Amino acid sequence: MNTMDKAFMIEAINMAKEAREKGNEPFGAILVKDNKIVMRASNQIFSGSDPTYHAEIGLIRDFCRTNNTSDLSEYTLYTSCEPCCMCAGAMVWSKLGKMVYSVTHDQLAEIAGSNIMISSEEIFENSPNKPTVLPKLLNEEGLEVFDGYKFG
Amino acid sequence: MNTMDKAFMIEAINMAKEAREKGNEPFGAILVKDNKIVMRASNQIFSGSDPTYHAEIGLIRDFCRTNNTSDLSEYTLYTSCEPCCMCAGAMVWSKLGKMVYSVTHDQLAEIAGSNIMISSEEIFENSPNKPTVLPKLLNEEGLEVFDGYKFG
Repeated sequence: MNTMDKAFMIEAINMAKEAREKGNEPFGAILVKDNKIVMRASNQIFSGSDPTYHAEIGLIRDFCRTNNTSDLSEYTLYTSCEPCCMCAGAMVWSKLGKMVYSVTHDQLAEIAGSNIMISSEEIFENSPNKPTVLPKLLNEEGLEVFDGYKFG
Repeated sequence: MNTMDKAFMIEAINMAKEAREKGNEPFGAILVKDNKIVMRASNQIFSGSDPTYHAEIGLIRDFCRTNNTSDLSEYTLYTSCEPCCMCAGAMVWSKLGKMVYSVTHDQLAEIAGSNIMISSEEIFENSPNKPTVLPKLLNEEGLEVFDGYKFG
């Protein structure tokens, strides 16, 4: 962890708070290249009527379409929570270079009451390419986003 | 397998052929409710510059957004190939009722040279909800779609 990683994770956690304020599930992500934020995204499953719009895969699809690229090998994605198998798969298919997360998959399962019980590590271990992973950055701050939140 | 299943799988395979003709990877899917096709989709990873636009998850996101629903429990998705972990995750999050596929995940790995080596069965077994699955329907016809195709 360096100072920039910490600053970027705070931004991802802020996007999670924004998602919650907008009535969506409290997850956020940002995409960084050369120490600059190039895109921000938050969960839109309710506001967008799209159960596939988790912050991470939503960010990847929007960024790739908008910028006409399918190769994120030089990018780092910061996410407030470890990705599910859907979002981890999107990271593999877009060749993401690095992924940094705060809350773990198992912590989320405990908070939410259920989850798809396959960790991002398991997905990446079985993939043709995988991002470098920095886990549990600002874990306490990430967990605070869920204070009093009820999953439907 | 009944006659309708077979007819619907032929439509999904036709969408895979259409994807290939348009310069995308050869995968297709259709969504059915009450024995009627309500949406068709094909892989758009190259034409759409979107590495997340596999036929299955692309269909789910487009259908849910367009129809303002997040619950596909009364729908059946027919896909020319067993879904990857990304698309299987999308099926869980959208509460898909039933999924029918032709080519298997392992057959695809052999054809493509690589894959995320986690089967849809493994995803569903570890999920809070899962579709009923009918595997390997019209498997030979599904495999024909890949004849001479080279994965990048």
